[in-house]
Amino acid sequence: MLALRVEKKNISVKEVERPDRADEALVRVLLSGICNTDLEIARGYAGFNGTIGHEFVGVVEESTNRKLVGRRVVGEINAGCGKCDLCRAGDSRHCASRTVLGIVGRDGAHAEFLQLPVENLFPVPDNVPDEQAVFTEPLAAACGILERVSISKSDRIAVIGDGKLGLLCAQVVALTRASLLLIGKHSSKLRIAERQGIETATLKQAAKRSKQFDLVVEASGAAAGFALALELLRPKGQLVLKSTFHGKTEIDAARIVVDEISIVGSRCGRFTPALELLKKEAIDVQSLISEEYALSKGVQAMRRAGVKGILKVLLRP
Amino acid sequence: MLALRVEKKNISVKEVERPDRADEALVRVLLSGICNTDLEIARGYAGFNGTIGHEFVGVVEESTNRKLVGRRVVGEINAGCGKCDLCRAGDSRHCASRTVLGIVGRDGAHAEFLQLPVENLFPVPDNVPDEQAVFTEPLAAACGILERVSISKSDRIAVIGDGKLGLLCAQVVALTRASLLLIGKHSSKLRIAERQGIETATLKQAAKRSKQFDLVVEASGAAAGFALALELLRPKGQLVLKSTFHGKTEIDAARIVVDEISIVGSRCGRFTPALELLKKEAIDVQSLISEEYALSKGVQAMRRAGVKGILKVLLRP
Repeated sequence: MLALRVEKKNISVKEVERPDRADEALVRVLLSGICNTDLEIARGYAGFNGTIGHEFVGVVEESTNRKLVGRRVVGEINAGCGKCDLCRAGDSRHCASRTVLGIVGRDGAHAEFLQLPVENLFPVPDNVPDEQAVFTEPLAAACGILERVSISKSDRIAVIGDGKLGLLCAQVVALTRASLLLIGKHSSKLRIAERQGIETATLKQAAKRSKQFDLVVEASGAAAGFALALELLRPKGQLVLKSTFHGKTEIDAARIVVDEISIVGSRCGRFTPALELLKKEAIDVQSLISEEYALSKGVQAMRRAGVKGILKVLLRP
Repeated sequence: MLALRVEKKNISVKEVERPDRADEALVRVLLSGICNTDLEIARGYAGFNGTIGHEFVGVVEESTNRKLVGRRVVGEINAGCGKCDLCRAGDSRHCASRTVLGIVGRDGAHAEFLQLPVENLFPVPDNVPDEQAVFTEPLAAACGILERVSISKSDRIAVIGDGKLGLLCAQVVALTRASLLLIGKHSSKLRIAERQGIETATLKQAAKRSKQFDLVVEASGAAAGFALALELLRPKGQLVLKSTFHGKTEIDAARIVVDEISIVGSRCGRFTPALELLKKEAIDVQSLISEEYALSKGVQAMRRAGVKGILKVLLRP
């Protein structure tokens, strides 16, 4: 089968063996989405070698769970050991021995087929088309904000970053009815949020609103976004760190202590709330699709996904 | 009157005018304590020029509140505007226009007299000697941890730093009955905590306990302490940042996101719980006193306070 591989920082589409673990379900990929993490892995992040990709929708071809065979599914990307305290408490996302689809110790989704444990798969509601279902994983990550902080209607919230993740985070936060400002650089991207009734601002405009926010979500992945977030927070405010920065970031620790700021890391989220939102058509993901390529053009697609102004690039096996 | 002053990074004991604001209480200082923040201010932190010092016990000489005159008091160091939302909600510690005793816009406690608003003063229980009452402010800061995070008996907690603040934080945390490890460099300082039944470890010993703690309090003020704290935390663990670092600190933001760590800044705490603990003799502060100097020897005392291995240095006007 075809697969988009990273090997020693080289990226290529290759013919590889179809996976054949008997203890996991086999999924035929219908569509996969390129995430910024894929771009970072191609640059060496996480030291991963293998098939990349972790956002997908597919059809179950083989499984010990007969009911799943033939079903359209999306998949939780963390596969835990099943035995440690965290796994037994239902949170394999933090299992120390976990593999992560296309990121840690497990071939990923930019391929014709992938494998995952049966318990990682979630059937997709019939009214959700493939082009939307493929956003379940990043939308779950955006919903993950609400697993880490509680938001009340009276909160003043800013989301920094108008990329794919920032636009999803902003739409999820908007559903809480709290006052919301999305801060970004690109008017074409900000417009997607504006169409959902979300107020937007450029970085320059936002910089004037020092200490006016109760909660800031940093989803730009840039050190400048982190510094702006600290600037915007009121004393005792909360900063949700949503992007994985590559490398070290400088912070003003005195500011965190003196103003008693909280910084809350947030990575993956649960799939069920994300699928519910897609089913209810509560989130505009369609506008986030920039381009679609055949899997065989995966290298070109990765290059496009790294171009400024481009949002989601999809791959079709 | 005599006062220990910092002016353009020069430190000296000088004869200055006695303060005479009619709207604030006048306190005759009995004892004051040198804090690491004083040492940092002398190096230029906070850009403060004036009389330094914010830990004291004194006697009210003049006040519009007649009942206070002649009483032995300690004092909350933040004086808010009294008008903003934060002040009206009872938290002048974060008022944007606040002055802070010996730190921001207000002469401090290393002097024969100081002034504070009447509402900042707290009478000292009769059974608490001056030498203990002078620790109320740093003990309140240690108690402030419990204002920012909730601790349960089943938590595994580490405190990093065996200086004055670390030893107070460890003793406060120990009262929660949670499992506790104090991590430091100096066996003589660690012994103070051991006498209170607190388990201790050197940095090297602690480094072996990666990801084993639910909550870590960073009270060393060193970048290495911050890095160790991140190393010791389990996924979804909490780091309480207690020390004001001077300058920028490098952090591994990816670690915070991937392991969903929370970082919680904590500065000052309320005085009432600290006075309660001193009244109940629940905290050993006596062992933290290294030396005492006459205020006139303030420059020499500051030099001693900066020497490795020295804990609290007191000044007596």
